[in-house]
Amino acid sequence: MASNAEKVSEEVQKSSIEDDEDIVNPWDVVSSSAKGVDYSKLISRDMHQILDLVEKKTGFYLYTGRGPSSESMHLGHLIPFIFTKWLQDTFDVPLVIQMTDDEKFLWKDLTIEETNKLAHENAKDIIACGFDKDKTFIFSDVEYISESTEFYKMMCKIQKLVTFNQVKGIFGFTDSDSIGKISFPAIQATPSFSSAFPQIFTGKKDVPCLIPCAIDQDPYFRMTRDVAPRLGLLKPALLHSTFFPALQGAHGKMSASDPNSSIFLTDSDEQIKTKINKYAFSGGRPTEEEHRKHGGDCDTDVSYQYLTFFMEDDDKLADIKSRYSSGEMLTGELKQELITVLQNLVGEHRKTRADVTDNLVNEYMKSRKLKFDY
Amino acid sequence: MASNAEKVSEEVQKSSIEDDEDIVNPWDVVSSSAKGVDYSKLISRDMHQILDLVEKKTGFYLYTGRGPSSESMHLGHLIPFIFTKWLQDTFDVPLVIQMTDDEKFLWKDLTIEETNKLAHENAKDIIACGFDKDKTFIFSDVEYISESTEFYKMMCKIQKLVTFNQVKGIFGFTDSDSIGKISFPAIQATPSFSSAFPQIFTGKKDVPCLIPCAIDQDPYFRMTRDVAPRLGLLKPALLHSTFFPALQGAHGKMSASDPNSSIFLTDSDEQIKTKINKYAFSGGRPTEEEHRKHGGDCDTDVSYQYLTFFMEDDDKLADIKSRYSSGEMLTGELKQELITVLQNLVGEHRKTRADVTDNLVNEYMKSRKLKFDY
Repeated sequence: MASNAEKVSEEVQKSSIEDDEDIVNPWDVVSSSAKGVDYSKLISRDMHQILDLVEKKTGFYLYTGRGPSSESMHLGHLIPFIFTKWLQDTFDVPLVIQMTDDEKFLWKDLTIEETNKLAHENAKDIIACGFDKDKTFIFSDVEYISESTEFYKMMCKIQKLVTFNQVKGIFGFTDSDSIGKISFPAIQATPSFSSAFPQIFTGKKDVPCLIPCAIDQDPYFRMTRDVAPRLGLLKPALLHSTFFPALQGAHGKMSASDPNSSIFLTDSDEQIKTKINKYAFSGGRPTEEEHRKHGGDCDTDVSYQYLTFFMEDDDKLADIKSRYSSGEMLTGELKQELITVLQNLVGEHRKTRADVTDNLVNEYMKSRKLKFDY
Repeated sequence: MASNAEKVSEEVQKSSIEDDEDIVNPWDVVSSSAKGVDYSKLISRDMHQILDLVEKKTGFYLYTGRGPSSESMHLGHLIPFIFTKWLQDTFDVPLVIQMTDDEKFLWKDLTIEETNKLAHENAKDIIACGFDKDKTFIFSDVEYISESTEFYKMMCKIQKLVTFNQVKGIFGFTDSDSIGKISFPAIQATPSFSSAFPQIFTGKKDVPCLIPCAIDQDPYFRMTRDVAPRLGLLKPALLHSTFFPALQGAHGKMSASDPNSSIFLTDSDEQIKTKINKYAFSGGRPTEEEHRKHGGDCDTDVSYQYLTFFMEDDDKLADIKSRYSSGEMLTGELKQELITVLQNLVGEHRKTRADVTDNLVNEYMKSRKLKFDY
């Protein structure tokens, strides 16, 4: 086996995305530029393959996930799910959502019972995004691994093909890391293959997988794409949602442990207003006079960036950009636009989530056939 | 976590049993002495604790296992099971037997479906040893991990506490080893804790565990004993069965891939006779005259060593030793004694095993309560 496992493919070796400017891995997204990560370096992969399948009306499935380390999900966590819901609604395909409670147990100072409970709590926020229950399977690793022989077998198959050298190169693990962390990447790779879900795909091994995810999860799927051909299986295709900046600017990643780095789904209208006004990095000029004269910088202005994610009306967004860039619109007005949009969005989410019962969560998390036939 | 995990205890560091003479790990048992491994270097551990429990009539349970890499089990494989059956009969306690089909998949050039099938085949040989079905749970990792949340949780808890540095030190893993191999030791450690079997121990976390095993499995349980207190759990106690020598002598380990290194449970009477006569290392003298004068060496004579394992009649064994050492008994006669004993043993095993149906195997391997109340 060793000889096979040692064949670190060129793909993986070349794709380590850490250069002089940007660092992108599951624990750090650091850009030296206020405009954020240079996405042109992260090539979109095999999307043509998925579009071909849509054209031919051949099926595929969606896979995304969440690491449940905190009850408080923020807006950044929501982005991939909003995007995924759009993909599900548009293409009418099955969706599997992995809650990595084992991962968060391994990485954080939490018990496995706590992370498992958080998986269920976070599932409520995810369900509140409006996923169709007949088309969506949400699963906790701790629960599903101890329920599905095929999932565990696939985990083992991937773990057999990936060496410590490889995960060291991709994730920066060291000899002092726990063997749990070291072997975890295989668990996140596993749902990329349809045979891990025999109850959904009735044993079909070749249903193509499309993974919409935040950019920080890219290393896991570079590894997955490297392993796939050696398993005789299809590489999953990836769609990266643009990384959602912290309130303080595009340099870093929002953190659930810093309440002022983002808007949380539990924030009140008043908290949203205060946070945007106080912390949202402004692309405006120091004085009103200068601003009127030179205009604001939409590329670095966090309030404007947030509006590009959440303002549905493209014409209105274009109008705001034009008026802010010209100096006609002041930072306070721009921030007020965002405050209104977010108070609505978070308010709606709060209402929908309140209706998500534990029972409903259990229905989404029950291993079952979805409403697709294979 | 890292800080905790890095605390490699002195126990583990000191207990690496490789000195100038003997190497003992799951893949190599090499001794420079024809008398075999020096067991005085492998301290018996916490047996007084188990004997105390027997005295106080407090319960404990037995845990042993087998790596199913081949259909052909040999006599050496049988020793820990014969010993374990004696312990179960004597102390009337539950027994769990782990079939590490995942391990053998990770290490060997076999599919996971093949090693899982071998687990069931080997279970037949184990059941043929006579274990009480009401007191014995045999499980395949692939099947039981994907069936028991508590087992998987315990795996994760152990994987969180053990670093790559530690398994490198204990098992000699390198950076080129697969992450599957690297994290496997936690899976073999898991059954040492009663909470991994809620169906048997109804959630009790403090049922003491006694592990009868061959000496080559010691490193796994040194690691387990290191981890136990950090999990707030009892260290398992170990009982090493003396390592069973290859036919060629006590220097090495028998190998399923070398049919002449041992007697297999599938060997015919004729094969047993030929192998003993042709390959069993003799402690006799080069000529009959010298043998009569100086006597044979029972310490290195493999036929005599085998008799110490399988001859029930201690008086007869003592008589053989005395007559062989004095030169009264010749090598041919000694070998004939062994041939008779082994033809009976293997013949009986063959008959019993023929009655072990797939259905019976499934009954032993069904996750269930045993006939003990906790």
